[in-house]
This record gives sequence, structure tokens and C-alpha cells, in this order.
Amino acid sequence: TLAAPAIAQSAPTIKWRLTSSFPKSLDTIYGGADVLANRLRAMTGGKFDIRVFAGGEIVPGLQALDAVQQGTVEVCHTCSYYYVGKDKAFGFGTSIPFGMNARQMNAWLYYGGGDKLLNEFYANYNVIHFPGGNTGTQMGGWFRKEVKSLADVNGLKMRIAGLGGNVFAALGAVPQQIAGGDIYPALEKGTIDAAEWVGPYDDEKLGFYKVAKNYYYPGWWEPGPMINFFVNKKEWDKLPKEYQEAFQAAAYEANVTMMAEYDHKNPIALSKLLQSGVKLQKYPDEVLEAAYKAAQQLYADESAKNPAFKKIFTEYDKYRKTQNAWFSVAEMRMDAFLQSHK
Amino acid sequence: TLAAPAIAQSAPTIKWRLTSSFPKSLDTIYGGADVLANRLRAMTGGKFDIRVFAGGEIVPGLQALDAVQQGTVEVCHTCSYYYVGKDKAFGFGTSIPFGMNARQMNAWLYYGGGDKLLNEFYANYNVIHFPGGNTGTQMGGWFRKEVKSLADVNGLKMRIAGLGGNVFAALGAVPQQIAGGDIYPALEKGTIDAAEWVGPYDDEKLGFYKVAKNYYYPGWWEPGPMINFFVNKKEWDKLPKEYQEAFQAAAYEANVTMMAEYDHKNPIALSKLLQSGVKLQKYPDEVLEAAYKAAQQLYADESAKNPAFKKIFTEYDKYRKTQNAWFSVAEMRMDAFLQSHK
Repeated sequence: TLAAPAIAQSAPTIKWRLTSSFPKSLDTIYGGADVLANRLRAMTGGKFDIRVFAGGEIVPGLQALDAVQQGTVEVCHTCSYYYVGKDKAFGFGTSIPFGMNARQMNAWLYYGGGDKLLNEFYANYNVIHFPGGNTGTQMGGWFRKEVKSLADVNGLKMRIAGLGGNVFAALGAVPQQIAGGDIYPALEKGTIDAAEWVGPYDDEKLGFYKVAKNYYYPGWWEPGPMINFFVNKKEWDKLPKEYQEAFQAAAYEANVTMMAEYDHKNPIALSKLLQSGVKLQKYPDEVLEAAYKAAQQLYADESAKNPAFKKIFTEYDKYRKTQNAWFSVAEMRMDAFLQSHK
Repeated sequence: TLAAPAIAQSAPTIKWRLTSSFPKSLDTIYGGADVLANRLRAMTGGKFDIRVFAGGEIVPGLQALDAVQQGTVEVCHTCSYYYVGKDKAFGFGTSIPFGMNARQMNAWLYYGGGDKLLNEFYANYNVIHFPGGNTGTQMGGWFRKEVKSLADVNGLKMRIAGLGGNVFAALGAVPQQIAGGDIYPALEKGTIDAAEWVGPYDDEKLGFYKVAKNYYYPGWWEPGPMINFFVNKKEWDKLPKEYQEAFQAAAYEANVTMMAEYDHKNPIALSKLLQSGVKLQKYPDEVLEAAYKAAQQLYADESAKNPAFKKIFTEYDKYRKTQNAWFSVAEMRMDAFLQSHK
């Protein structure tokens, strides 16, 4: 065998800091940054060394993008839709209500021109992006009382952020922005009626099932939310070509393995939740229909006043429809048949 | 900027040959090997150099695994189920009838213990495997006449290989093994009644739609067929650690990008096929049900006489059921809703 370390003996040592938007306790989503960093160190004999910091260690979780834009850190791992307050066009990189599923997002970004389109937009923030994970279709939240009709949504105080919150508001609900650690007591006291988080594996940890038994699906505001790496453009340009290549390969890996890890863990967690008395509930059709309609209105309104949003939405929406026409054939018929044979 | 090439200036030059089972004309599936090779060269300043050969250039496409086992080449890109003639347990690494879909295969292999289980089996052939692409649920083939009932399957001469052929035979069909280039004339002359290939993008190239208008779905014998890299164990052990790491990252990339590329191309091809008069047809429920039953019988029979098959099948089948229970919740409800809104 050849002596190791064999690569990179004369390669430069590059030390970067990555700020994650996630706490270490959300091990799967947080772990995507470790997948990237560990692989890069291993490929380069430790020379390309990205140190991963949890949300809050360098900057608060929701300021990860800002930290990269300003050059405080070289890279972050976050969700683009945390930044819809800057521009609603930040929604597309992670998910918009009734948007694309995980596989469709990969197709759009890697082959459908999505990557180029988003990076043009992100250039305004001095960053470039790389897909870096997915949770799959999220669950639709924990409700103290059943939602049997659209009328039951009216006046509902729900912990939900971003564009999903805008759509819920259009249906008469009152969206609340509450940080992860504060959701449980609010739900327990009844300060809020409902809260959405991620899916069975992450939700179980926060214990919502103890105070709100109705577990709704699907999380229609995030059919295939993608997690994102954003790299400061100047720092990227300074990287040796080989390190840029290695970074890209490791980001592909983080993307595919996060989805696989969630798919592995969620069924196990869901089964435990059901055993502890959780009631699995479908959103009524009329709620989904009204939400879909409200979402389309939101997109039309935003497109009318925001050219960046309009440009991306036009492409995204066309692509989504083409994808769904195809996924409704072999994939859907196969999955539906297999799911009916337990 | 730092001078390039910066990595691997003192790293060893390794030249490997990869034999693909696929012709270059199947650019997406063949291309997975190029994704691996190109990324490895780019990451190592050209020092880890895998030259990709199409099926037939070094050995025939269906002997790719043998060539790696014997050390003729260091690595191949193939489908494990091409080798079910050696042992039916080779089916699991790519797909078995009514098996797991693409995302479920990733979950099983990367996190559910599937990888370890398969590599124990592959050790008997002096190879180790890495997932290296997926086509998604394939289409169910081109039929000269409609299949309206199970009775219509009886006596049908169909080009289909592997375990899918075994199941079709149990339904009374006569499976035929015909190489890609010979299918069209056989279908045109009526020597065969039907033929399955891959999906819209690949099928369109072979022109089947000109001689058999009925395009059936789903390809229930391959719900999520994974393409595989097999590496000769001795050659793998000789690689510097950093090259092993780089290989793994590039294989993850090949896996996720092939699926995305097919998802991008298939809807476009399907749309063209439909415009040229193709009739999209569902397999009748009674055909799917009978095939499902025949497949379970095949698995029971094989398990009774093949301990390697039984060991893997037991784990695989349990995992598949757990996965389907979860995928039937948020993913299914979301996809079904979105597909109903065109």
C-alpha cells in the first residue's frame, strides 16, 4: 500500500468557519454540515479544514446568510427561506407552499436551470449556493384540537413562519413566530393552538405529542425543502480549483445523505409516536384547496411588484407542472400500489 | 488566487479502467461513470485518472462484474441484477419486482444496514459496491396490443430479463432475452409482442413507439433500480486513503445526479411521445395483483433454498414495509394533491 497522506502534501492549508442555522440537537439537519466538513478533511489529508459552528455560537441561526455576505464566516448551512423578509424570492431555494418535492428540486437545480437562476439572484448578496440536504415533505403540525373544516382554521393561533404563515393568514389563522425552544410551553399553556416543526424524528424530540395529540399531514408549505450551503463569493474565488471541485462533490453527498437519513429515521419515530397515542390526521381537502388558491394569489401579487420573484417563479412554476405530469405516471402508480400492500 | 494545481502535487498517479455495461448512446446511465471519473480527475489535479470504456469495448456489457472480479479492470458501472444467473441475491442491489423506490433504496443502503449486508455478499466475488445512480420507477414496456386483463398476458412474448421475466413467466407470458439493438426489428416483425426498456428518455431513442403504440406503466419489476459501481477489493485496498474518500464522494454525486438528470429528461421525452400518438396505459389492477403474488411466491421459494437470498430478503422486505408505511403519509398525500392541480 502507498503511504498516506498521499494527497495534498504540498496543497495549501485552508481554514474556513461554517455557521449553521441549526442546533446540534437537530442532529440530522445539523449533521449535513459535518458530512461536508468531514469529507473535505478526509479527501485533503486535513488541509481543507472547515470548522462547523452550531446556530448561535458565532451568529444567531437566522443570521447565517448575513454572516457569509459580510465575510464574518466563509460558509453557512441554512434554509434560504429564512430570509424571505429581505426578499420573497429567497423562498425558492428551500421551498414555497405547494412547491416541488425533493427529487423535483434536484432535477430543477442540477439540470433544469434552477441553479443558474438562483445564483444570479444570490449574486446580489455576494454569495453562491449549493444544495446541501433535504427533509422530504414535512409534516403539517401539531394541533390541540381537530381541524375538521376550513372554518376551524379561522382565528387559529399557529406557530408557523415564512410564506406558509402568509398563506395561513389568508385563511384567517394568526401565524406566530416562536423559536424552537419556546414552542412547547406555548402549546402546553394554550397560548398557541398549533405548531409546525419538521417531521416525526425531529418533532418527537421536542415532545409536542404530550400536549397536542393531533398530528396533521402534509406540511403543504414545504413539499421538499432543500437545505443550502451559501459560500462567500470572494472566498470561493480564492479557493484552489481542486478544493472547489472537492467542495462540490461533498455538497452533493450532504444533499443525498440527509434525505436518506431522514427517510431512515422518520418511519421509526412515527411508529413510536403512534404507539404513544398520537392521532394521525389529514388536512381536510377544503383546507388544502383554499390554501392552494391563497398561495397562487400570493405568487401573483408578489410577481406584480417584485421582478426578481416573478422571473424565478415563472420558470419554477412551469418546471413544477412538467414534473408533476411525469411523476403522476410510473412513480405514483407504483408507490400507490406498493403502499396498499402492507 | 493561489496557483493551481494545488492539490496532489506529490500525490501518486493512479490509472484505473472502468468498464460500463452501457453503450454511450444511453447517455444518462452511461454518463454516471463519467460523472465519477471527471470529478475524481478534477479533485486530484488529474492524478486519480479513471478511463471509462463503454460496454463491449473491453468486455461485453453483461460481463462487467466478472471483469472486476478477475482484475481485468479495477472498477465497473453496471446493474447488480444483470448477475442473477450467478445468484438471485444479486437482484437486491439494483431492484427486485415490487421492491423499494429510489429514495427508499438510498435510505436502506446508506442508513438501514443494506450497504453492509450487500457488501458481505459481494465479498464472495472479491468486489465492494457503491451506489452509483438510479433511473426512478421505470416504465412497463411497449405492447403491440392492449393488455386489458390477466388473460391477455397469457402466451405473450415479451422482451424482459431477470426476475421480472420469472414473474411474467409465472403469469403465463414467455419472457425473451434480446439485446438492446435487436428489440426494434423483433417488435416490428411481431416476433415478440412486447418489450420493456427503461423510461421515456431512453425508450424514445430506440423508436419503439413507431411499432408498438401502447406504453404501459409502471415497470413493477423495477420501482427504483439502482446502478452500481463495483470495485476490485485488492485494488481498493491499495488506494491511498484520500483517494478512497474522493471516490466515495464522487459516487454519491453520480448517484444523486443520475436520478436528477432522468427526472429532468423523462417528462420532456414523454410529452414528445404522447404528441406522436403513443397511448399511455395503466397495467390493469388484476395484472399487478397477480404479479405481486407471484413475486412473493418467487421470494419464498428462493429463500427456502438460498440462505444468502433469504438473509438479505428478510431485512429488505421488513425495511420496505416500514418505508412504505411512512411514505404513505406526508409524501403521498402531498404528491397526489399536487398532481391533481395541473
